[in-house]
Amino acid sequence: MTNTIEITKAQTSKIHDVDFENLSFGKVFTDHMFVCDFKNGEWQQPEITPYAPITLDPSARVFHYGQAVFEGMKAFKDDENKVWLFRPEDNLLRINKSAERLAIPAFPQDVFMEGLKALVQLDEAWVKQGLGNSLYIRPFVIATEPAIAASPAVEYKFLIICSPAQSYYSGDVRVLIAEEFSRSANGGVGYAKAAGNYAAQFYPTNLANKEGFQQIIWTDADTHQYLEEAGTMNVFFRINDTLITAPTSERILDGITRKSILKIAEDSGISVEVRPVKVSELIEASKDGSLKEIFGSGTAAIVSPISAFSYKGEVFEIPHQEERFSAIFKEKLLNIQYNKSEDPYGWRVSI
Amino acid sequence: MTNTIEITKAQTSKIHDVDFENLSFGKVFTDHMFVCDFKNGEWQQPEITPYAPITLDPSARVFHYGQAVFEGMKAFKDDENKVWLFRPEDNLLRINKSAERLAIPAFPQDVFMEGLKALVQLDEAWVKQGLGNSLYIRPFVIATEPAIAASPAVEYKFLIICSPAQSYYSGDVRVLIAEEFSRSANGGVGYAKAAGNYAAQFYPTNLANKEGFQQIIWTDADTHQYLEEAGTMNVFFRINDTLITAPTSERILDGITRKSILKIAEDSGISVEVRPVKVSELIEASKDGSLKEIFGSGTAAIVSPISAFSYKGEVFEIPHQEERFSAIFKEKLLNIQYNKSEDPYGWRVSI
Repeated sequence: MTNTIEITKAQTSKIHDVDFENLSFGKVFTDHMFVCDFKNGEWQQPEITPYAPITLDPSARVFHYGQAVFEGMKAFKDDENKVWLFRPEDNLLRINKSAERLAIPAFPQDVFMEGLKALVQLDEAWVKQGLGNSLYIRPFVIATEPAIAASPAVEYKFLIICSPAQSYYSGDVRVLIAEEFSRSANGGVGYAKAAGNYAAQFYPTNLANKEGFQQIIWTDADTHQYLEEAGTMNVFFRINDTLITAPTSERILDGITRKSILKIAEDSGISVEVRPVKVSELIEASKDGSLKEIFGSGTAAIVSPISAFSYKGEVFEIPHQEERFSAIFKEKLLNIQYNKSEDPYGWRVSI
Repeated sequence: MTNTIEITKAQTSKIHDVDFENLSFGKVFTDHMFVCDFKNGEWQQPEITPYAPITLDPSARVFHYGQAVFEGMKAFKDDENKVWLFRPEDNLLRINKSAERLAIPAFPQDVFMEGLKALVQLDEAWVKQGLGNSLYIRPFVIATEPAIAASPAVEYKFLIICSPAQSYYSGDVRVLIAEEFSRSANGGVGYAKAAGNYAAQFYPTNLANKEGFQQIIWTDADTHQYLEEAGTMNVFFRINDTLITAPTSERILDGITRKSILKIAEDSGISVEVRPVKVSELIEASKDGSLKEIFGSGTAAIVSPISAFSYKGEVFEIPHQEERFSAIFKEKLLNIQYNKSEDPYGWRVSI
C-alpha cells in the first residue's frame, strides 16, 4: 500500500448553498471525502474524492450483519483561522479497537492521520470560527463484500466524511434511567463503536422521548442497579463536590471527552471517584440534596448538563447550581479545542 | 401505496454462468430483486427490477448505526417442478417484530407475500430440483436516510434478494460453549434478526475456529451457566430419549425451524422439554452417557448435527447414534418442504 493519497478535487463547491446559522446535526456534508478500500488482504490506494454516493451490491455484508464501526471527532477554527483537531490519535486507536472486536482489519495509523489532515485542509472553509461551531468528522468502516455468508467479510471500505456542526444539544437534557431495556452485555460489544449498538437504542429512546426524556442512562443488564452510559455520551455525577463516573468496561465506551474531563478535574483539584455508581445512591443523593449535577460528555455534545432524571415513574429534578462543574469543564475543553488557552496536555493537533 | 408491483425484467439471464453443483453459500444471486422504498411516512411503489447494485449516500444511517433487520427463508422445487415456500407468513411476522425493536416501520403483509411470490416465480429456473437444493431468500430492510444523527431514519429500503443454495453445512459441526463472550443481553435485541447481532459474533467465532470449532453455543451473559442458541441456529439436546431446548426469550431467536421441530417431535410421540438447560447438566449427561445428540436448527442449516462440544478447555465427543432424532426431523421437514409427504400443518405454500 502506498501512503500517498490520490486527490481528486470537486469541480465546484456546495458551500454557498449552506446556511451555517441553521444546521441540523449531520445532514450537510463538505465537498470531499476520504476513501480507502480493503481487498486481497490489504488496504488499497487511499483517495480523496468529491463527496459522492457509494454503490454497493445488495448482498454487501454491512446491510445484513452490521459489520461496521465508526468514530466521531471534530475540527475547530481559532481566531487566526488556524484549524485544530482534538486528540485524533485516540480516535484512530479506538476505531481499530472497535474494528478488532468486529473482525474488521485495522487501518494504518499514518494513512489515517495523513488522510484526515489532507481532507480537513481541503475543506477548511467549512470549519467556521466561533465557539460552538466545528467540523464534525466521521471516520467509518463498512463491510462491502458481496456475499451473505454469516462470517467476516474479506472486503471493506474505510471512509471519512465531514459535516459542519453547531452545538449538538440545546438546553438541558432530561433523562430516563433504564429499568428493563439494556444497551450491552458482559462479553458483548458495548465498549466498541459498533454500528449495531446504536440502532439497538432507538426504540427504547423513542419510548423515553414520548415520556418527555431526550436520552436514556443505561444500567447494567444483569441487575439494572448500576449506572453505565447514555449511549451517545458518558455520564458524570457530582455529589457534594465530588465528581463520580463509572469505570470503563467491556460494556462502557472509553470516551475521549470523558477521559479529558477526568484529567482536567484532577488537575483542577476536584475530588474524583471512578467507581460503579448505584441508582439507589443517586436517588438518595437527590433526596438529601447532595446531588448537585449530572452531565453527559461526548464528542458531539462535549458537555451536556442533565436537569432531571426519571426512575420507576418518579422524576427527580436537579436544582440549578451557581457554579457548575459542567460549565468549568466545558469552558476548559473549549479553550483548548479553540486554541484560546495553553494546552498542557498536548491534546490539540494542528492541521 | 399501491399493491400492484411494477416489474422490469432483466434483458438477459446470468443463470448459464452459474455452476449449480459448486455453490458457495450466498455468493450468487438470481436475475431479479424486489425493492420498495419508505419515505414521506409511507412505503412507496413496490418494484421488481433486475438484480443490481444500490447507490446510497455515505451518510446513510445503516452504515453508521446498523439500523437494519433481515430474514432468511427458502423455496423448494418438487419432482413435478412446482415451487414451494415454507411458512413464509412467519418470516413476515418476525421481520416486522425485529423491525419494531429497531424502530423501523413495519412492512405490509400483502405486499410482502405478493412481492415474494412474484419474485420467486420470475426466477423459478434458479430453484433446482433435488434434496438439498433450494433458493435461499433474503428479505431485508436498511435505513437509507442520508443523515448521521443518532436517531431512527425517516427513509428505508426493503429488498428481497435470492441466492441458489446447496446444503449449508457439510458434515458434523464441533462447537465451543461460550465462557466469556456473549451474544445478547436481557433487555437487548437478541430475539430480533438485527444486523448488528451477527457481526458481534464474528470475532469470538474466529477465535473458536482457530481452536477447531465451527460454531459457538452462546450462554447467558450474566452467569454463562445456561445454554442459549448458536447465533445462526437454535440448539437442541437429546438426553436419553428426551428432546430439550431452551425457551425463546428476549435473548433467543424464535426460530421457525425450531418451532417446526418441536411440533413434529410432539406429534411423533417424542418427549419434549422446553426449559432452561444448564451447561453442567450437559456435561453430566455427556459423562454418564445419557447425552445422545446435540443439533442446531435454522433455515440455512435446516438440521445440523453437532459431534462435539468444548467447555473450559475440555472436549466432549458425542458418540454417533444409530437412530438420530436429528435425522428423523430433517427427513420429515425435507419431505414437507419438497412436497414428498402430506403437510398436516399447512406449512407449505405454493408459489
